[in-house]
Amino acid sequence: MTLQPIIDLAAICAKKGIKNAILSPGSRCAPITLAFARHPEMHCRTISDERSAAFIALGMAQQLKKPVVLVCTSGTAALNYAPAIAEAYFQQIPLLVVTADRPKEWIDQWDGQTIRQEKLYGQHIKKDYVFPTGYSLKDEQWHAHRISNEAINAAMAFPQGPVHINIPLREPFYPENGEDFNYSNNIKLVQELRGTTLLPEEGLIKVKNALDKFQRILIVPGQQSPNENIGNLLNQLAKDQKAVVVTDTICNLQSKETINFHDQFLQVVPELDSFKPDLIISFGKSIISKSLKQFLRSSSASHWHIQPEGYFPDTYQSLSCQIHTQPEYFLQFLLDNLKVADQLFIESWKEANYLMGKALEKHLSNAPFGEWKAIFQALKHIPAPSKMHLANSMAVRYVNFLGPRKQEIICNRGTSGIDGSNSMAVGCTFTTKEFVTLITGDMAFFYDRNAYWHNYPVSNLRVILLNNHAGGIFRIIDGPSKQPELEEFFETQQALNAEHLAKEFGFRYYTAQNESEVEEVMEQFYHPSIHPKILEISTDSKTNTGILKTIKRQLKEEFILFPK
Amino acid sequence: MTLQPIIDLAAICAKKGIKNAILSPGSRCAPITLAFARHPEMHCRTISDERSAAFIALGMAQQLKKPVVLVCTSGTAALNYAPAIAEAYFQQIPLLVVTADRPKEWIDQWDGQTIRQEKLYGQHIKKDYVFPTGYSLKDEQWHAHRISNEAINAAMAFPQGPVHINIPLREPFYPENGEDFNYSNNIKLVQELRGTTLLPEEGLIKVKNALDKFQRILIVPGQQSPNENIGNLLNQLAKDQKAVVVTDTICNLQSKETINFHDQFLQVVPELDSFKPDLIISFGKSIISKSLKQFLRSSSASHWHIQPEGYFPDTYQSLSCQIHTQPEYFLQFLLDNLKVADQLFIESWKEANYLMGKALEKHLSNAPFGEWKAIFQALKHIPAPSKMHLANSMAVRYVNFLGPRKQEIICNRGTSGIDGSNSMAVGCTFTTKEFVTLITGDMAFFYDRNAYWHNYPVSNLRVILLNNHAGGIFRIIDGPSKQPELEEFFETQQALNAEHLAKEFGFRYYTAQNESEVEEVMEQFYHPSIHPKILEISTDSKTNTGILKTIKRQLKEEFILFPK
Repeated sequence: MTLQPIIDLAAICAKKGIKNAILSPGSRCAPITLAFARHPEMHCRTISDERSAAFIALGMAQQLKKPVVLVCTSGTAALNYAPAIAEAYFQQIPLLVVTADRPKEWIDQWDGQTIRQEKLYGQHIKKDYVFPTGYSLKDEQWHAHRISNEAINAAMAFPQGPVHINIPLREPFYPENGEDFNYSNNIKLVQELRGTTLLPEEGLIKVKNALDKFQRILIVPGQQSPNENIGNLLNQLAKDQKAVVVTDTICNLQSKETINFHDQFLQVVPELDSFKPDLIISFGKSIISKSLKQFLRSSSASHWHIQPEGYFPDTYQSLSCQIHTQPEYFLQFLLDNLKVADQLFIESWKEANYLMGKALEKHLSNAPFGEWKAIFQALKHIPAPSKMHLANSMAVRYVNFLGPRKQEIICNRGTSGIDGSNSMAVGCTFTTKEFVTLITGDMAFFYDRNAYWHNYPVSNLRVILLNNHAGGIFRIIDGPSKQPELEEFFETQQALNAEHLAKEFGFRYYTAQNESEVEEVMEQFYHPSIHPKILEISTDSKTNTGILKTIKRQLKEEFILFPK
Repeated sequence: MTLQPIIDLAAICAKKGIKNAILSPGSRCAPITLAFARHPEMHCRTISDERSAAFIALGMAQQLKKPVVLVCTSGTAALNYAPAIAEAYFQQIPLLVVTADRPKEWIDQWDGQTIRQEKLYGQHIKKDYVFPTGYSLKDEQWHAHRISNEAINAAMAFPQGPVHINIPLREPFYPENGEDFNYSNNIKLVQELRGTTLLPEEGLIKVKNALDKFQRILIVPGQQSPNENIGNLLNQLAKDQKAVVVTDTICNLQSKETINFHDQFLQVVPELDSFKPDLIISFGKSIISKSLKQFLRSSSASHWHIQPEGYFPDTYQSLSCQIHTQPEYFLQFLLDNLKVADQLFIESWKEANYLMGKALEKHLSNAPFGEWKAIFQALKHIPAPSKMHLANSMAVRYVNFLGPRKQEIICNRGTSGIDGSNSMAVGCTFTTKEFVTLITGDMAFFYDRNAYWHNYPVSNLRVILLNNHAGGIFRIIDGPSKQPELEEFFETQQALNAEHLAKEFGFRYYTAQNESEVEEVMEQFYHPSIHPKILEISTDSKTNTGILKTIKRQLKEEFILFPK
């Protein structure tokens, strides 16, 4: 074997702190598989369905804040990674995707498992590389080592993301008995020391002067991992009435100081003038609340977005300043420099938030049983600290309606697909001993069922499955519910329940069809167990829609006279 | 709704004879969904997992020889099509992929289900188009109609393949009650009359003169659909001893006149000199037999490949002439012009083929029970005419070892992936009342299980599942079987059997663990039924490998004294 640079790739990963790999079986990728599987510091798992493999790696990397290595063989195997890679790209999660390939001269010659793998992930990859095909020359070895370093550094640089190394390989793929297989002691490492982007003194003065013009500042954090420091700064800004802080569940920054019930009340408050900001300050990634987005897009506020580097999207169609710095620093600066905000503005948000929290609690408590209520109930039993994965599309919305959570909230809002939520949750269990709860609808759940097709324990996984036997969201939104094609072509009614699947994959299976059954199951659901557990809550899509509409009407009535 | 060009797209498809669509649920794609679902001549089915949806469409198009329409919403939905699209590209099967997208100005602005969809399928699509975002101008309408026509024409032109129309859409996505929704009577159609590529007289004289130099012509058809005319021509060429015709199972041209047992005997004949051709003539797509490929690559023959248009791969590393014409015409020309070939050459192939057929029959009959023998038995019971889908990698190889079949043989040899074989077979059942048999290993079977997650009957489907609880091929090939990582990282032992899955998806489930059980099940397996049926044959990967090696040794012994 003269494949030392491939063996070294695993060693370079380990030296750079990358110690987890998800491998999918294949023959052409054997040298890569062996390089990772044999490295003493590397923890490898094998997952056969590459689509799930990639989302599992993503679920791990999302927690570890470091690339997880993906290894697969040539051909369509690599294309099955594509959905997770797009999610990684937009959710800015680092992955190191390593694919085996045939040497270039064999592409398009009708050999098996041969596609066109260079630039395979198109515009959804931060950077892509092709290893040299041979390593006999010193320059080729240097090239391979350089690529290994560059790729990892690129994945880690802000904004983090997926990178791809394509490795053309000739036979033989397997070392002979007794053949040397050693990790070099002296591998070439290119370290990277990253600086912190700070605004210069004059920039800060400019910002300070500009801030003086605004009385109604709305801070809107986007999706991000929990960050206690940022949380404290935001709470203090809100407490000091220097700004209003509006938080969706996926920003992991909700508290009793922040506005959390906006998604509902922005739909029912009859007169929103007093809510209108003159400046929106955002950081982090996307938000969920469609009513907040629409409200902000229709406001005439300025919009400053804070991030150290990279592309600045204009989410609210009013971007006026791209501020290149760390959010923490900027929030501290705001805390030090802002005056107390306009009182009507502050009070309007606070009051509406308070009223909506109370109204929701009341009407949900009185509502008949359905999936929204089931989540409302179940949430009270989920331990903290723990991790909560929420599937698109209704699960994350329901939770977002219901106010602050103590758990870490995770959801695929990079691309908002339904295609990898089981796998993300499984990946998460590989990184923590805390409970990992997945709340999911039936479409997302059955779509990604191959997440459970492997031999690794996921005993700390708890799945709450809202099975309405359809894509319930299509009955809830106005357009499709009026079409005669609703049931077959939008909802896509599906007959399955999870019992067979639970047996097949070794879950303890529970069902609940009313409040007391939910209570009963939830009381024991988080007892430690060898097997993961699944609670299937079967409801009817029509009933759910009816309840949702009734509650929305009731909420609207509560707000007819707002402000009181 | 001012979306008339989208409504017209469905009408243009229908007028061009495209009458099947596979839709996946989504909101942004609603106008497209409605356009196809409401068209009176269009047969639409809805499949929720886009990966399976695309392979199902491919399985249909493969039979229909016409594009099947795929419709999905924006975001990663479209990326889940990618594996099937690559297979369609290399297997040259037409698909019309229609994806909904956001208008261009909203890309990268952190809205949900938004990725970069232009050129999404990279180098694995014949042609890609983007619809205009509005249709208020006449030029825009003309553009949309032109794209619709061009895309379909491109998919149908030789070599057929997948094409992509990306359609940016703004809200509203749904027509209001009572709003007009009419298919134009007067849509713009661009028909295409295709010519037949014939060689000019002088070209034919050149070929005739060149042919005079060759005494040992080997004709090697690649993968293709059954073609009686070509079959007759080849049989006549073989009968008249003008050439040797070597046929893998996937070319659907095997007969008692052709050489069918080459994959085995080329490995054991001690002296292959008399088998060596001086000219290889090929047409169609890929072949399976690795020993045939290696034999041809090591020969010093010339190689002529026949196809009307497109890229000519150099599969045997000896391509010397690209002949642009229809294979039928060229084979007829050969029949009319070839002399009788070298007798030693003809006899060597015939004799080895005959001996191997007999030897295989004998040793398999005497072999202990294992998956190879199970297939050998089962094949005797599969009705003809019918369709047989063979999964990669071992199922298709086993069948290829066993000589001519009367059924149509279908296998994903465009990219040779394991990822869509269930779905291809399901798609096939949507096009025929004949029985469709899928022979598959456990890895391919469980990988693509979402093929069965829909509400459409597949009563004519019969699945023969060879469950060795692993990727058995890795124990069979030499390299990985010697590595300590064999079981976890190559075979990827997996514990599932199909019983739960069969219950879940409404299959009648049978098992067999020895010869008499296989016989017993097979006797009733093809009785008509409302539910599809699955026969799971559980074997042990080690035993299978042992049997395979024993038989190979026995076969080698039979050939020690060849030629006799």
